[in-house]
Amino acid sequence: MSTESFVTVSQNSDFPIQNIPFGIISTAEKQEPRAATAIGDYALDLSEIAKAGLLNQIAGLEDPVKVFSEPSLNTFMSLGRPAWRETRLRIQKLLSKDEPTLRDNSQLLEKALIPLSSVKMHLPAQIGDYTDFYCSREHATNVGIMFRGKDNALQPNWLHIPVGYHGRASSVVVSGTDIRRPAGQRLPAKDAKAPVFGPSVRLDIELEVGWFVGTGNKLGERVEIKDAKDHIFGLVLVNDWSARDIQAWEYVPLGPFLGKSFGTTISPWIVTLDALEPFLVDGPSQSSPEPLPYLQEKQPSAYDVNLNVEIKPAGSSKFETVAVSNLKYMYWSITQQLAHHTVNGCNLRPGDMGATGTISGPEKGSFGSLLEITWSGRDKIHFENGVERLFLEDGDEVKITGECKNGQYRIGFGECSGKVLPCLYAANQ
Amino acid sequence: MSTESFVTVSQNSDFPIQNIPFGIISTAEKQEPRAATAIGDYALDLSEIAKAGLLNQIAGLEDPVKVFSEPSLNTFMSLGRPAWRETRLRIQKLLSKDEPTLRDNSQLLEKALIPLSSVKMHLPAQIGDYTDFYCSREHATNVGIMFRGKDNALQPNWLHIPVGYHGRASSVVVSGTDIRRPAGQRLPAKDAKAPVFGPSVRLDIELEVGWFVGTGNKLGERVEIKDAKDHIFGLVLVNDWSARDIQAWEYVPLGPFLGKSFGTTISPWIVTLDALEPFLVDGPSQSSPEPLPYLQEKQPSAYDVNLNVEIKPAGSSKFETVAVSNLKYMYWSITQQLAHHTVNGCNLRPGDMGATGTISGPEKGSFGSLLEITWSGRDKIHFENGVERLFLEDGDEVKITGECKNGQYRIGFGECSGKVLPCLYAANQ
Repeated sequence: MSTESFVTVSQNSDFPIQNIPFGIISTAEKQEPRAATAIGDYALDLSEIAKAGLLNQIAGLEDPVKVFSEPSLNTFMSLGRPAWRETRLRIQKLLSKDEPTLRDNSQLLEKALIPLSSVKMHLPAQIGDYTDFYCSREHATNVGIMFRGKDNALQPNWLHIPVGYHGRASSVVVSGTDIRRPAGQRLPAKDAKAPVFGPSVRLDIELEVGWFVGTGNKLGERVEIKDAKDHIFGLVLVNDWSARDIQAWEYVPLGPFLGKSFGTTISPWIVTLDALEPFLVDGPSQSSPEPLPYLQEKQPSAYDVNLNVEIKPAGSSKFETVAVSNLKYMYWSITQQLAHHTVNGCNLRPGDMGATGTISGPEKGSFGSLLEITWSGRDKIHFENGVERLFLEDGDEVKITGECKNGQYRIGFGECSGKVLPCLYAANQ
Repeated sequence: MSTESFVTVSQNSDFPIQNIPFGIISTAEKQEPRAATAIGDYALDLSEIAKAGLLNQIAGLEDPVKVFSEPSLNTFMSLGRPAWRETRLRIQKLLSKDEPTLRDNSQLLEKALIPLSSVKMHLPAQIGDYTDFYCSREHATNVGIMFRGKDNALQPNWLHIPVGYHGRASSVVVSGTDIRRPAGQRLPAKDAKAPVFGPSVRLDIELEVGWFVGTGNKLGERVEIKDAKDHIFGLVLVNDWSARDIQAWEYVPLGPFLGKSFGTTISPWIVTLDALEPFLVDGPSQSSPEPLPYLQEKQPSAYDVNLNVEIKPAGSSKFETVAVSNLKYMYWSITQQLAHHTVNGCNLRPGDMGATGTISGPEKGSFGSLLEITWSGRDKIHFENGVERLFLEDGDEVKITGECKNGQYRIGFGECSGKVLPCLYAANQ
């Protein structure tokens, strides 16, 4: 396989031939959502490629036309890593500079190679369940210090368990979907006895990375950590919007609920673990304490993915960076998260999504939420032209991007973005 | 409509003509799951009734054959309360003693009327999201006393919020499915510093009632409490199996996770709110404090449903009652739960499920969990022949039943049952 495609890929493109992510697209001409990959500034319609017979004879992928004409990737996800891997290699081959099959088929290219600017992106999967973890030590420590003081920052279970909770699947939306500011109950002051009702006044972001379950497991049977990677189809960027005031009032004792379930944005292209393999690195040391055996990693399991959060405040014309972090900062790896998730026999299904929880790095510039960046509303963020923010205002836009780089090439994740719309309900309604 | 059916219905049947619940069945002869109702000791195959043209001309139900041949009720649920109501009335009419259309069509009856003993029940819906509430004041108080003492039993938010959390949808199973004892992390003693891994030693039940979302709402838009009933398709019985030791170690600060997600059993027949209308009663007073306006009920919203929990200990030949409770004890109604769930704009979808949380009554005999009945493992439950229990042992079977009664008739919910299988994983593995 050539490391170059016959499709022009600019140097700063997220989608070189080494990436080959999977997503669901539709176009004005053909409104049925179907599978695609991205290459340079183009989407390659995999349903068309399959119809032309170019995805035949891939082990485990018996009916490529059916699989890639579906409005979600769930069936493809269920086929298993060997099938995903061979499909990706086949697509790479088809897109190679020195491979004439697709390159010289102008009629097929006319139908299948579509400028990304003309494409509408959809959720890549029908998400059965969404689980959110809390796996950045820096984030958990920061939040702990704010709420309980420095000496009790980490809860006693935190270094033993990749703490997680069930999230809301119905409100996961694809990048570009507007987010409505939620209304709800909150305490009007810290020592208030009774709540008031109204729009959230502490609307926040959470910089996270999501992982999609490929093959699942049966109810009652766990996935061993050594096999966990084979169950993960790939990664996306996640903004888990959070209403801190609603969350603070509701979350004891059963955890976050309405403070989270009004919207979770994900980037539309799933970058496969195979594409990310060259960027595997060792995660943080886990020697004190050592995890229980079922959580012990025997191989590198952190991914070196640079993450960037930008905000365009309402009325401004440009995005400005508010955080630069990295997926490798996570204390608990995504494979530990998956192994833990199933250790009680909980069944994961193709298309289920996990997310890491807010990814914060060691320094202030690397914190993944406004809660941490502003230290719970104490320190203002300064934008150009004198604009300031503690939490999000109506009309603000948030954009998360991610990239892996080595000496040879760069793999990107596309965009995870959304704009805040005003709440529909006034106070005390 | 006659109040009697041409199908024989014994006096203690759960399924008289006044009930007409909806479920999904399959049979040895026809393995495709499809919709049915229950009457006496029979299932009535609605796909066959529809094919015979007997469900035509129901407003809102344009394609009854398609809708009732699907393997879940989701499409039917999405059609709205007028369609559900007219369908139920039509079925009642068809089953009436004095209505010849179905009664005298022996060829159709041969195909469509199937003994319940020959029917396999399936989950009635594809559950998109499952939300579990915590809405019994007695249960929350009992748990609060055990964990925090009498003076701080109820959390400050409890009387203001129908507290809830996201549950796991993938592990919801239909009555009769065996439940595998989960393994996980737990503290070996109350003051232990580090957890151990092994099978749960405090496996519990939770007596709950579930409500299925019929018509949903758009992301960003709430459902007003006055309209909430029209969004609820009907009710089922729920046993939300809980591993108390896993839960106790993991749940701070993000709530229950693996202590719950290994299995949630529901009864297979959804009893509609229309069938339950005659059993509406006033719920507990909510004057101190008054709920915020969006939670204020203007009409009776509690249902008088007697609930019964029985256990058949491993090796025993009979079920013995361990709790008798009632849905009407709930502090927060199911319509308050739904209104609260959407007040932040969270979207509910047809087939989503909510559950009330453990329903405990005022006295010990009415507590809905072993945690409460044994007062956290202090007081043994005595069964016949000297058998004792604190929590569930392998081989134990649990059965929940429910019924509404008035002077004229009795409506039942069928059974919500399951048996505990031994854990697959030994300690320290």
